[in-house]
Amino acid sequence: MVDVGILGATGYAGEELIKILLRHPQVRITYLSAKIDKPTPISKIFGYLKGRLELICELPDYKKITSRCQLLFMALPHTVSMEIVPQILDSDLRIIDLSADFRLKNIKTYEKFYKVKHKSPQIIKSAIYGLAELYREKIKQAKLIANPGCYPTAAILGILPALVTEMVEPDFIIIDAKSGFTGAGRNPKPDFIFSEVNENLKAYKINTHQHIPEIEQELSKFCKKNLKINFVPHLIPLNRGILETIYLKKKKDFNLPEIISIYKRFYKKEPFIRVYEENSFPEIKNVVGTNFCDLGFYTETKSEFLIIVVAIDNLLKGASGQAVQNMNIMCGFKETEALL
Amino acid sequence: MVDVGILGATGYAGEELIKILLRHPQVRITYLSAKIDKPTPISKIFGYLKGRLELICELPDYKKITSRCQLLFMALPHTVSMEIVPQILDSDLRIIDLSADFRLKNIKTYEKFYKVKHKSPQIIKSAIYGLAELYREKIKQAKLIANPGCYPTAAILGILPALVTEMVEPDFIIIDAKSGFTGAGRNPKPDFIFSEVNENLKAYKINTHQHIPEIEQELSKFCKKNLKINFVPHLIPLNRGILETIYLKKKKDFNLPEIISIYKRFYKKEPFIRVYEENSFPEIKNVVGTNFCDLGFYTETKSEFLIIVVAIDNLLKGASGQAVQNMNIMCGFKETEALL
Amino acid sequence: MVDVGILGATGYAGEELIKILLRHPQVRITYLSAKIDKPTPISKIFGYLKGRLELICELPDYKKITSRCQLLFMALPHTVSMEIVPQILDSDLRIIDLSADFRLKNIKTYEKFYKVKHKSPQIIKSAIYGLAELYREKIKQAKLIANPGCYPTAAILGILPALVTEMVEPDFIIIDAKSGFTGAGRNPKPDFIFSEVNENLKAYKINTHQHIPEIEQELSKFCKKNLKINFVPHLIPLNRGILETIYLKKKKDFNLPEIISIYKRFYKKEPFIRVYEENSFPEIKNVVGTNFCDLGFYTETKSEFLIIVVAIDNLLKGASGQAVQNMNIMCGFKETEALL
Amino acid sequence: MVDVGILGATGYAGEELIKILLRHPQVRITYLSAKIDKPTPISKIFGYLKGRLELICELPDYKKITSRCQLLFMALPHTVSMEIVPQILDSDLRIIDLSADFRLKNIKTYEKFYKVKHKSPQIIKSAIYGLAELYREKIKQAKLIANPGCYPTAAILGILPALVTEMVEPDFIIIDAKSGFTGAGRNPKPDFIFSEVNENLKAYKINTHQHIPEIEQELSKFCKKNLKINFVPHLIPLNRGILETIYLKKKKDFNLPEIISIYKRFYKKEPFIRVYEENSFPEIKNVVGTNFCDLGFYTETKSEFLIIVVAIDNLLKGASGQAVQNMNIMCGFKETEALL
Repeated sequence: MVDVGILGATGYAGEELIKILLRHPQVRITYLSAKIDKPTPISKIFGYLKGRLELICELPDYKKITSRCQLLFMALPHTVSMEIVPQILDSDLRIIDLSADFRLKNIKTYEKFYKVKHKSPQIIKSAIYGLAELYREKIKQAKLIANPGCYPTAAILGILPALVTEMVEPDFIIIDAKSGFTGAGRNPKPDFIFSEVNENLKAYKINTHQHIPEIEQELSKFCKKNLKINFVPHLIPLNRGILETIYLKKKKDFNLPEIISIYKRFYKKEPFIRVYEENSFPEIKNVVGTNFCDLGFYTETKSEFLIIVVAIDNLLKGASGQAVQNMNIMCGFKETEALL
Repeated sequence: MVDVGILGATGYAGEELIKILLRHPQVRITYLSAKIDKPTPISKIFGYLKGRLELICELPDYKKITSRCQLLFMALPHTVSMEIVPQILDSDLRIIDLSADFRLKNIKTYEKFYKVKHKSPQIIKSAIYGLAELYREKIKQAKLIANPGCYPTAAILGILPALVTEMVEPDFIIIDAKSGFTGAGRNPKPDFIFSEVNENLKAYKINTHQHIPEIEQELSKFCKKNLKINFVPHLIPLNRGILETIYLKKKKDFNLPEIISIYKRFYKKEPFIRVYEENSFPEIKNVVGTNFCDLGFYTETKSEFLIIVVAIDNLLKGASGQAVQNMNIMCGFKETEALL
Repeated sequence: MVDVGILGATGYAGEELIKILLRHPQVRITYLSAKIDKPTPISKIFGYLKGRLELICELPDYKKITSRCQLLFMALPHTVSMEIVPQILDSDLRIIDLSADFRLKNIKTYEKFYKVKHKSPQIIKSAIYGLAELYREKIKQAKLIANPGCYPTAAILGILPALVTEMVEPDFIIIDAKSGFTGAGRNPKPDFIFSEVNENLKAYKINTHQHIPEIEQELSKFCKKNLKINFVPHLIPLNRGILETIYLKKKKDFNLPEIISIYKRFYKKEPFIRVYEENSFPEIKNVVGTNFCDLGFYTETKSEFLIIVVAIDNLLKGASGQAVQNMNIMCGFKETEALL
Repeated sequence: MVDVGILGATGYAGEELIKILLRHPQVRITYLSAKIDKPTPISKIFGYLKGRLELICELPDYKKITSRCQLLFMALPHTVSMEIVPQILDSDLRIIDLSADFRLKNIKTYEKFYKVKHKSPQIIKSAIYGLAELYREKIKQAKLIANPGCYPTAAILGILPALVTEMVEPDFIIIDAKSGFTGAGRNPKPDFIFSEVNENLKAYKINTHQHIPEIEQELSKFCKKNLKINFVPHLIPLNRGILETIYLKKKKDFNLPEIISIYKRFYKKEPFIRVYEENSFPEIKNVVGTNFCDLGFYTETKSEFLIIVVAIDNLLKGASGQAVQNMNIMCGFKETEALL
């Protein structure tokens, strides 16, 4: 039995972590904290937890964290994690950080996109990017995991196999991303209230979204070239799920069965990747509530273009599900435990 | 041509007033104000107004208001109106106040339900309650209109005919109300963000909502008795519309055609009331975008109960549409102008 | 390990049964059928089952059902169950029927509300009404369970404690019910398409809904009186969940803590009933995805009325969750297995 | 006063035509038909029309059409129009056909994409493609208008200026389109019911949608080259609106102000085109309920790509609003009459 804590327990990702971990037979939640006025039972904050989890949620107390937990999930806003990690890194704790603070290896890029000075640059190098499909072996031993962002998870899993097999041009990547609204967090901005979002649709942060350098970093690493992508995210009036429609330029001619078989081979041992057959495409409702990443494909022999559709649940494979997948790998549990 | 101004132009009611008044052939919008950081063209705030209304929206300036406008709509939060009205009441301005500040004749009741001290108690008496179906003659001459609340408009129009004809008991009134989310205003509270409201449903302020005394005041006046009602409002994940299901106890026996014909007679000259035939019931989509109030009925001869379903658009008949209806009456325009 | 089958596997209730049973450690799904053109892998019908359940779904084959299954869930439309049950009742199968066909003890009432002749009247008497909170002992030994309807589950659990303790009048029961749209089934009617339902709200089948006699039968049984209720259901534009706002007339005076403590005592051993404290009320999002039934209360000492708010997930406690709860009781499993 | 009829009055486009035409001071609706069981007052079909339009809706009667109407809107499903037009073309009627039957000049392309044999090929040549921004002069004299499709209206208006000024490559056009659900029509398919569409998102008909040849035909005409486009439509859980995110490859280098000024010049006299300034982008809520087409742009000097965001209301500029705009041009009315 591993004792785990959650910082940021009242956000969407933290809430989702609680739900998953309550189903996990080898784990016990022993500490919860959040930015909160006064210590409050978590079952008062989330009514449905009444009778299932009786823990107090409070402001973070480093002593309690290190004494009560063996593994810590940090589901905090960007720029908060980097202040806390140095305080607790010397303990025996293993840490899975869901923020962006330790994902980007290039500090200047981080500071440009997140518009703050990085406060713990010395720690970045040791953090492992927690995309199990790429870095499973490193994750096993990791002390600090930088859990991937939601858009990057879908984008990297969708593009990488075609890129490393040199089926597509690295200089021509267009990602048209659509996200459900929990992706924006529990943030009471005027633009986020129900009647502004409902029955509306818009693009935002065109080619300037902070997830762009994360996608570029990982794809570049595998094709040995500094890629630039086009990335246009859209907010959709639904709660959960990301659908990315990706447009790539073929480097050589191939047909649909060929590309599908490349992806099947690439992911053949992956428990959470599902490659669709011809003429069927991922939908958000097929992945919501699951840790799956679904992939579908379109091309024609005469066409220069390859179109890939990727779907994940932004709160599961795009955040908390993936974080638990990483915990399972780190602790030697079955990788799919509590996730199927 | 009448020159009109709008205070609170950036809220939902203010926005709706702009839309209606732009269609009105006898009216010109000459002044707009709102709680705003710096003066801003209204077409920047509401993109779709580009090329249709080029006015600056600014903090309220009483001199400009009284010099530029003949009639003023005040679409301000409760408790703000009562500070402003005394400053401008001495001018020639006619005022339609969409807030609750001058609706309740009993100051103590106001102070109990709105939880503030009333700052202009001397003005209350002169304000006319702007429900045209009851007070049309008084509205014609009014200097200051207290425009009715959204829930009260539907409730009073739904209950009054049965009550004044003594078909139902005054001591037994249950109103189960459901409102779309614009009813909560442009208010960035954590509970109001999209992913909290979407796919959820709840009752709130059970028997304590601030619209209760307004309904009780108007119904009591017409049946010469201090009524108490049961009122349970619910927030529904849609943008516009109110549906109220009203449960009344019959005072004598009557059948469905009898009660329908009583309502038809009561409202026979009303341009905005539609009484439904047997076996058909109002739906929100039949009134959204209109100034109509739709009424449907259910009873059986053997039953003690009368059930009434009422539907309005909370932003039109429940706010801005009704305000323009009042303006039309005050200015001697056709009552339905810009509202059909 | 118990082998179970599901008839009607492609409807919402059937789909939900699959999801729950896949998480159940003591159960194996061995047979699936549905009204379907040709035998089809269930993982083709529900994409997200790929790799998790590889069974063919076909038209019902009675021989296969009785040879492959020890327990059968029937998630079929009303009037279909009563044709099938006689064909398989002689086997060793235990049956949980989610339709209404064996819920009503009075055949005439059934035939009036469901508008068909009952084809297996002789079987009705032996069926046990599967509301565990009332009939747990009988369920343990049952051969055939009539699983309760969604609206009745919430209504009966909400009203019964106040009624049997004679706190409220039996002649005065008003239920204003609101249901998410899966309650209407996978039924391609013109009124059910997205753009007709979205942004709309309506009452339907006022005092004529087929769930009325079911509520009346169960409540009457416990207060030894033939009750008549008022029941107005509304369809809400969201996927899952029922919220019922219930208006009752107090038979004697009591205050809020008194009634809350009566309910707490009544349900004190129930694993799926949660009684709320003063000033807090059930919301759909607190029960969606769970088998809980949440109850909240409002009354004042001076008031004649008691208001109760009940929330359940219509597909879980209102259908498939409750069915699995019944299976757990019948098979001697832990009652909450796969349901927490 | 012009007398107009509507065929297909009960579909979304027909309903919208009624709403607009009722506001039009120079037009009288004199005939309504639809695929309907028996003649029915339109105010029974659309409750909100009660007291505003008292016409019977019936199966189409060619004699009545030609005797009662001077201008006819045909809002019928594809493949129905081509059977009716020959029956009435010899009369004095002017016809605005909202279907696709007369949009494509190449009959083989029509037959491939709509999967039927064309029944009136001889009429195609005389039909004028009703995109006022391109063909205003021809529309003035037209006998038969082929009103553009919703996706093509947004795509052509979005792409054409950049293409004819040779700022972008004709061989590289990617359109990622998102449409509200009224775009799918009033069609009771199992996939279209509320609970299947709500909280879901999917791509469909990738590079095979029937609107592709319409876009290719019009763009090709203006750049004298047979274009091929990539077009991926997505269905979004909201009622109205289309947002298209268009990815183009620059033929020469230019910056953002340059491309914006090209579009401003191109559309400078157009009453329904709004070109956005830098850093602001169209949203569906800015166009819903209007006949506007909004355009926003993104590019950088160093980048090879130009990204254009286009928004329209699919039922207005994408169907009925544009049809009325065409009528206004044909009849010599003010082009914006009833549309602002």
